[in-house]
Amino acid sequence: MIYLDHAAATPLSKHAFEEMKLYFDADFFNPSAAYLPAQKVRRQYEAAKDQIAHIIGAKGADLVMTSGATESINLAFSTIRPGAKILISAAEHQAVRACAERCGNCETIKIDKNARLELEDFQKKLTAETEFVSVCLVSSEIGTIQPISDIARMVATERQRRALAGDDRPLYFHCDASQGLGLMEVKVARLGVDLLTLNAAKVYGPKGIGALYIGHGVKISAQSVGGGQEMGLRSGTENVPATIAFATALTDAQNHLSAEKKRLQNLKKILVKNLETIPNIEFHGNPKTQLPSFVSFSVPGIDAERMIFALEDKEIYLSTGAACAASKGEKSPTLKAMGLNDAAIAGSLRISMGKLNDEENIKQAADAICKVIATEQARLERSKA
Amino acid sequence: MIYLDHAAATPLSKHAFEEMKLYFDADFFNPSAAYLPAQKVRRQYEAAKDQIAHIIGAKGADLVMTSGATESINLAFSTIRPGAKILISAAEHQAVRACAERCGNCETIKIDKNARLELEDFQKKLTAETEFVSVCLVSSEIGTIQPISDIARMVATERQRRALAGDDRPLYFHCDASQGLGLMEVKVARLGVDLLTLNAAKVYGPKGIGALYIGHGVKISAQSVGGGQEMGLRSGTENVPATIAFATALTDAQNHLSAEKKRLQNLKKILVKNLETIPNIEFHGNPKTQLPSFVSFSVPGIDAERMIFALEDKEIYLSTGAACAASKGEKSPTLKAMGLNDAAIAGSLRISMGKLNDEENIKQAADAICKVIATEQARLERSKA
Repeated sequence: MIYLDHAAATPLSKHAFEEMKLYFDADFFNPSAAYLPAQKVRRQYEAAKDQIAHIIGAKGADLVMTSGATESINLAFSTIRPGAKILISAAEHQAVRACAERCGNCETIKIDKNARLELEDFQKKLTAETEFVSVCLVSSEIGTIQPISDIARMVATERQRRALAGDDRPLYFHCDASQGLGLMEVKVARLGVDLLTLNAAKVYGPKGIGALYIGHGVKISAQSVGGGQEMGLRSGTENVPATIAFATALTDAQNHLSAEKKRLQNLKKILVKNLETIPNIEFHGNPKTQLPSFVSFSVPGIDAERMIFALEDKEIYLSTGAACAASKGEKSPTLKAMGLNDAAIAGSLRISMGKLNDEENIKQAADAICKVIATEQARLERSKA
Repeated sequence: MIYLDHAAATPLSKHAFEEMKLYFDADFFNPSAAYLPAQKVRRQYEAAKDQIAHIIGAKGADLVMTSGATESINLAFSTIRPGAKILISAAEHQAVRACAERCGNCETIKIDKNARLELEDFQKKLTAETEFVSVCLVSSEIGTIQPISDIARMVATERQRRALAGDDRPLYFHCDASQGLGLMEVKVARLGVDLLTLNAAKVYGPKGIGALYIGHGVKISAQSVGGGQEMGLRSGTENVPATIAFATALTDAQNHLSAEKKRLQNLKKILVKNLETIPNIEFHGNPKTQLPSFVSFSVPGIDAERMIFALEDKEIYLSTGAACAASKGEKSPTLKAMGLNDAAIAGSLRISMGKLNDEENIKQAADAICKVIATEQARLERSKA
């Protein structure tokens, strides 16, 4: 198997698995129980939260643990007052788009041909009425890193203007870091965000756990009420094993950030060099603002779905875009907003590399992709003739 | 260690752990991805849902997987229209009480001295305006099994009356089966419920996974929107490993239901026989309608918290009531509604037995509890003198 879909899911790291195991069995206690072993579990849970928070330059008390990115995003959107004007980029994941749609009064900020948010368009749309902005750290289809700190500066300027004008209308900036976390430095202060969505399942942590960073002064409404866990913002018995595993996996990723970046840059070079030989291939994204793990491309005339099935026969697994959107056969709004025509959208493939890849299997994959596309191009030639 | 708090948390069963392991590593794929191995994971996930559903006499498609009982309860309450009148019992878990409070227009149905719902009071309060009823299968503090099918019959009669009168006001019956599942037969048809909350973490499954059964025709609003998983009712990448483990643990519990019931009945007999020797002890609950795993009692004049700490020194772990409520030092509303006075409430202890108990350690525990209480009673005598 050659797995090229790390942006959809990552396996749980062995280290994270080892660390979490104990909490299924010996240390299974409910952290809200009064007796000592349960209190010890409570402390270890809080320590794991601190560990996750530390990596993004925050404190454990700034995090609300959730069941994953989708819940975090929904919780972030709970800050929005009914009818308030919100802005999202055209490169957002379906979870952000669905939340924005539900809110109603939403405008979309343009992205350029590389899927990067257009700051001039953002500046224009950021008006005195805007109360919420949501932009992903990295677009899940192209791997484009968004200009988060530039957006944050504009948001800060608008806030300052309001403060001086005695206008107390709130304005929050949420960033969905589901893609990017564990692959690049993510610090809330440097990014300048008020709310940050984190997800374990894409950083070699387990499925079913995520977090929302909540900056000081941000008013969140609990989605789930009950036992009052997570400072009353997210009730339900704490998922201790998953939180421990998330902390372990993220810490490991953080500790190997620059080495892994270099390794992925090298793999990307090999991959791109090989794919470049495909006639008419178009790469998406500007390598300067793209995560090294991502290679997105299309070959006009080629149907991406067909290619996925052809490569599947060779046990090579990749995707057309975000797994949830892809499973419903929807046309990617990100690719459309980038200005790609229908043929290019239909021919778009996403490769997202990670720990399961090395030079050897990337070369093999590149070779197989070239062959499959060549065969398809030949077939199309014949059918035209 | 002698663990007597199975109602707060259970360890993950070895079998469930073995079954789930694979899905962290070899079968870690995102079930929404298009390639075959991901589709295989999707099928196994759906099969696990079918397996869970089968045990409650339902189909996989009737279940929405959640992150646990609290989320399930909150989702069940999302059916409630703003301002609608709802009824809950006085023996509900904090999650149900908090949801009901948030809805606003809520009345509480009385319970008797054994924590069992009073059907006459329910009949009286079930009016033409009632739109939602929520009663637990088993009270989490006393272990009292509620007369769910009787309630369901009254609900059905009221529904029929409305249908004949051409009144289309909805009326749904939700049951929180967090306690009881895996320890007694739970069939939706026999219970007659429209919505049923299930929780893995109390049936030797993992934390962070639960389900809501949704009967035909019940209109649910998604709490979390996004990728559209779980028929659009609960977005977010499916927690495959936890769902597999939940199915495994619940199936095992179901397969050993009657043997485990007998075993627990025997342990309870031993425990009660020993505790009966304590002067002035009062047992709570009617053994005929109480799960055999529960023993709840109070000794007037004795402070339960002190007892918990004294027993902790002997590595015996039990609680005063629901872990979440206990951790905030709140007086139990269930015990109050049962008519216990403040002294009895302050002296109430809950023992909930399970797989970690056998004759040997129950005898030891009983002995230790008797001694600790005798010492405390002697101390109190002396201080009076």
